[in-house]
Amino acid sequence: MNIGILTSGGDCPGLNAVIRGAVRKGVRETGDTFVGLKDGWRGLLEADYAPLTTHDVRGISGRGGTILGTSRTHPYSQGGPDQMKRVMKEHNIDAIIAIGGEGTLAGAARLADDEGMPVVGVPKTIDNDLNNTDYTFGFDTAASIATESLDALRTTAESHHRCMVVEVMGRNVGWIALHAGMAGGAQAVLLPEFPVPYEQIYTWVRSARDRGRAPIVVVAEGFVSEDLDDQVSDAGRDKHGRVRLGGVANHLAPLIEEATGVETRATILGHLQRGGSPTAYDRVLATRLGMAAVELVHHKKWGYMTSLSGVDITSVQMALAVDNLKKVPQSRWDELQVLLG
Amino acid sequence: MNIGILTSGGDCPGLNAVIRGAVRKGVRETGDTFVGLKDGWRGLLEADYAPLTTHDVRGISGRGGTILGTSRTHPYSQGGPDQMKRVMKEHNIDAIIAIGGEGTLAGAARLADDEGMPVVGVPKTIDNDLNNTDYTFGFDTAASIATESLDALRTTAESHHRCMVVEVMGRNVGWIALHAGMAGGAQAVLLPEFPVPYEQIYTWVRSARDRGRAPIVVVAEGFVSEDLDDQVSDAGRDKHGRVRLGGVANHLAPLIEEATGVETRATILGHLQRGGSPTAYDRVLATRLGMAAVELVHHKKWGYMTSLSGVDITSVQMALAVDNLKKVPQSRWDELQVLLG
Amino acid sequence: MNIGILTSGGDCPGLNAVIRGAVRKGVRETGDTFVGLKDGWRGLLEADYAPLTTHDVRGISGRGGTILGTSRTHPYSQGGPDQMKRVMKEHNIDAIIAIGGEGTLAGAARLADDEGMPVVGVPKTIDNDLNNTDYTFGFDTAASIATESLDALRTTAESHHRCMVVEVMGRNVGWIALHAGMAGGAQAVLLPEFPVPYEQIYTWVRSARDRGRAPIVVVAEGFVSEDLDDQVSDAGRDKHGRVRLGGVANHLAPLIEEATGVETRATILGHLQRGGSPTAYDRVLATRLGMAAVELVHHKKWGYMTSLSGVDITSVQMALAVDNLKKVPQSRWDELQVLLG
Amino acid sequence: MNIGILTSGGDCPGLNAVIRGAVRKGVRETGDTFVGLKDGWRGLLEADYAPLTTHDVRGISGRGGTILGTSRTHPYSQGGPDQMKRVMKEHNIDAIIAIGGEGTLAGAARLADDEGMPVVGVPKTIDNDLNNTDYTFGFDTAASIATESLDALRTTAESHHRCMVVEVMGRNVGWIALHAGMAGGAQAVLLPEFPVPYEQIYTWVRSARDRGRAPIVVVAEGFVSEDLDDQVSDAGRDKHGRVRLGGVANHLAPLIEEATGVETRATILGHLQRGGSPTAYDRVLATRLGMAAVELVHHKKWGYMTSLSGVDITSVQMALAVDNLKKVPQSRWDELQVLLG
Repeated sequence: MNIGILTSGGDCPGLNAVIRGAVRKGVRETGDTFVGLKDGWRGLLEADYAPLTTHDVRGISGRGGTILGTSRTHPYSQGGPDQMKRVMKEHNIDAIIAIGGEGTLAGAARLADDEGMPVVGVPKTIDNDLNNTDYTFGFDTAASIATESLDALRTTAESHHRCMVVEVMGRNVGWIALHAGMAGGAQAVLLPEFPVPYEQIYTWVRSARDRGRAPIVVVAEGFVSEDLDDQVSDAGRDKHGRVRLGGVANHLAPLIEEATGVETRATILGHLQRGGSPTAYDRVLATRLGMAAVELVHHKKWGYMTSLSGVDITSVQMALAVDNLKKVPQSRWDELQVLLG
Repeated sequence: MNIGILTSGGDCPGLNAVIRGAVRKGVRETGDTFVGLKDGWRGLLEADYAPLTTHDVRGISGRGGTILGTSRTHPYSQGGPDQMKRVMKEHNIDAIIAIGGEGTLAGAARLADDEGMPVVGVPKTIDNDLNNTDYTFGFDTAASIATESLDALRTTAESHHRCMVVEVMGRNVGWIALHAGMAGGAQAVLLPEFPVPYEQIYTWVRSARDRGRAPIVVVAEGFVSEDLDDQVSDAGRDKHGRVRLGGVANHLAPLIEEATGVETRATILGHLQRGGSPTAYDRVLATRLGMAAVELVHHKKWGYMTSLSGVDITSVQMALAVDNLKKVPQSRWDELQVLLG
Repeated sequence: MNIGILTSGGDCPGLNAVIRGAVRKGVRETGDTFVGLKDGWRGLLEADYAPLTTHDVRGISGRGGTILGTSRTHPYSQGGPDQMKRVMKEHNIDAIIAIGGEGTLAGAARLADDEGMPVVGVPKTIDNDLNNTDYTFGFDTAASIATESLDALRTTAESHHRCMVVEVMGRNVGWIALHAGMAGGAQAVLLPEFPVPYEQIYTWVRSARDRGRAPIVVVAEGFVSEDLDDQVSDAGRDKHGRVRLGGVANHLAPLIEEATGVETRATILGHLQRGGSPTAYDRVLATRLGMAAVELVHHKKWGYMTSLSGVDITSVQMALAVDNLKKVPQSRWDELQVLLG
Repeated sequence: MNIGILTSGGDCPGLNAVIRGAVRKGVRETGDTFVGLKDGWRGLLEADYAPLTTHDVRGISGRGGTILGTSRTHPYSQGGPDQMKRVMKEHNIDAIIAIGGEGTLAGAARLADDEGMPVVGVPKTIDNDLNNTDYTFGFDTAASIATESLDALRTTAESHHRCMVVEVMGRNVGWIALHAGMAGGAQAVLLPEFPVPYEQIYTWVRSARDRGRAPIVVVAEGFVSEDLDDQVSDAGRDKHGRVRLGGVANHLAPLIEEATGVETRATILGHLQRGGSPTAYDRVLATRLGMAAVELVHHKKWGYMTSLSGVDITSVQMALAVDNLKKVPQSRWDELQVLLG
């Protein structure tokens, strides 16, 4: 078969390992050929692609980013499914492997389920917010970078007897904050799922300070304290109803300093979490998911995506995976409490 | 309760995170006190211990090694269970959390099951060779270090058009070699479980060379080619029947060079794989296992160990976990093949 | 002799290595004793100190931060020199080793030269802006962290065809931006010393974009374009006459995006540059400077600081070293030009 | 001008940064063209080369290895200078930039001084053993990798109360061992330049053990104790008169264990020290040396190489630089002593 691959949505360490895994599997085992579609769905809509050989993918599994480029082009824009079908027919592309996050997979599910297109998916999100897969690649790398940053900031915080507020990714879910906070020994961890009041944050900071520690506060970018949520009118919210903060770390730092008397500084990790070489964990996971995607294609499991379950790679229907976010559950939040303060 | 903690067997990144997790959990949630037993079972047999407070464990989750020390002292030496019981009674130690690998856990299982001692376990092995847990902490760190080493060696191999043979840990199982080989893009991966003939290794090396690549060969220290195994008499074997090689990388390098004509060098990672700061993955896993061990103690699940199943921490009977090694299965070997050569 | 050590001013990787070097040298070679003064000059003014033995300094050379704490307490506050002299006499402190940046060393110079106090200095600044020493420790670590960040951001920038503006430290001088920009292959490097017009920045960005690259712009926090400088009234300036920007990266990113049409994102490295383990280079330099400071004490070279000249450790009068900033010279700027765009 | 570049001798992190610096400088400033000669002098002797444009060198300064390949082909083999001159004339190559270590530069000096060829040099050696330059690129990277390895091994050594003997590069000089030993806090540092007796090593190990530390011994591969040197006949020496040891770490470990009773393990870092991404320091140094080499070409300073003096790039006659090794001087050895034991 002649299989098109595309990467769509935000950048994520491990994308190249998926691409390499798929191409090696298909070329070596089932004699497939591949084309790389440029910049996500745009490449398919505009027939912008290039052949993708084993030579093109050599040595790329350790490289961040994606050799195919990415964009946020929506599959239903620019002519949508009809245009895609025309391109696939005209250019003899027999199937599509779409690597992306919730939005991409939701689009891929519609293309397969509603439009009858030969599309399979590979889940990708730094945020780890997809259901029906234990972890997504990219998350381990992001959590590792955040953890190393906490390690680095701790020494400087302690020298100055300061509190450090570190903002990590996670607009809707707090997985990165949870794991980095546990791994980095943070004294306060603030997740979108658990909008604790400001006073709780101050208590954790004071408790750490009183024991002679420099308090480290990890906050997911989407955290909003219940205090704030109570007070904000509709005008202060975005279209999803979320309070606009313009940088939650910068919002919290002066509040903490004023309430506790501990000099407080904010650091925003931002794009650093998406960059760099994927961890060994993410490279192995991504490679296996990519290889399994080629098996889905040959079994014509259109509308399915590959997924991790324990130590096994399995598959699930994409439409089921994307219907709601995988949030940090109460049990993980409870488990965390003894480590805080 | 007053709980004794010990770390036994080979060093493993994450031990300190287990200790911290257990102490924070017990002190904060159930009002326990802890003592740290020095150098594994020796500390218990000789009543060599010190109090272990939350102050003692602060900031240690990111540090390699173990603050308690470790040794290979056997629990049935030096007076054995009777002596341990005396020490526990005399020093008011109510329960033991034993953190260790297969040998340690087998000993702990006997103490609990046969001697009626209040002992629970936390599994630890860099080799990932324990059944009934998806992964053990330490493995991710070791696989990461091995992968980074492959990344580093590749550039120098390519500049010199050389083959590099890299020996990683794994006397009986090849998990580190498998994961590092996949993540680092090795052209040949040699596992104890799959004793391929020399000619297969040469074929992989030649194939890589012919495509213009510097061949990287990852070999687990316990790998023995079937060719060699066929030829060796009993005198050339150790007490487990394994062929003595004295450094498999040093054994293979000249053979590969002679057979393929590619200049070949050996590198043995050795103790570097046990050292250094644990990865974020291992710190989170180890912390959670340590916290769960305290729950086992309070539920009096003597003879059980904590374990990872998917994303959950559960528990299993130690006696079941240690009865045989978790080897790399055929399916993972098959999956790997398209990446080699 | 009984020697007091203090660390003052901003945190800087390598401070602990200086302390260790000094203590080992004095205790082992000249039989000195040491006390660690807490939080810079405050510790001396308030007689807040503790003995500092070789045991206290073991294993600390690789640790970021300072075990003595630091603050910005001015030596002429709280009773000033007279109070310090009283404390030294009363507590039998014979000499002071002050480790700090420009401000600290200027203070130390006055104490030695004007007040006759037995004070020597060790230069410390991440910014590398001190004259009469080739490099200061901390700079190499900061430049390394900035370079690794550029490496990481490049892959994600290229996947998204974006421009990345990365703000690094350097309020008055651009050494970190210069070195990180050269090492990380930045397409534009913006230094306080060379306030190029906006149009020049856009030209570099467009040139990189036209060659298919994701443009990386490194900007020192103190950079102000000459265009802006021309337009700003006194109200928009701080007490040093510098234009207030509130984050130069956030200021530049939208300007670049609008002028060039390239989607542009800002990243501010901030405190990450001060944290973490010092590089091998900084540890060696810091250790040697600390050891040499003890020699200065025994030669009673009050008012002098240790310094690096080529591969040698020498000493210079502090009053000379701090009279003006070491800026990036025209020759280094000219040398850089062929790498930009 | 049309300039040929070659990299010769052992691999060294920073080679690619030299190449990029030279090409950017020549193309942008003086309108030169470049060709890359493959695998050192072989490429020149066999006219095996390819054009080298700014496009070819983009993004390579952070990559280890050399995009040109390297070999140990001698310039006086295969037809030697006459053949080279023929190739240069026939292929319109106007000048050669030879990047290499002592052997390469000695060859380049002869070609320029004795044969009248238009050759300039860029010094390269991980060992830092070249005179007339403060440091060579590659050394900082190697010393950094060795230091990080010491950091990692220390935790595992302390958990097991073991002594670790770590063998680093340095056949004739001990610079890497000296810097890594200082930076990593080693208790014993063994350099080829200072062949201390075994008893001294044991004293350092015992002293560290008695203070409760796990002794770390760093040994340069070329170290030979004076005890051994006294006893060895000519048959036990290589052609340079050096004692054959077959791995000095493996030689020392059992001796130390027997003499001190401390369980001792050996680790050989080997090729890991040449691999991986160059440090920021090495990238900046290498880039500047490469740019300066193009200036040497345009000033027709044949027989000269670029060099580092303090913070400046200068040039020296190659024939002077290679006449003897830059050894660790007595003063640096003396300085080290207070840190040992």
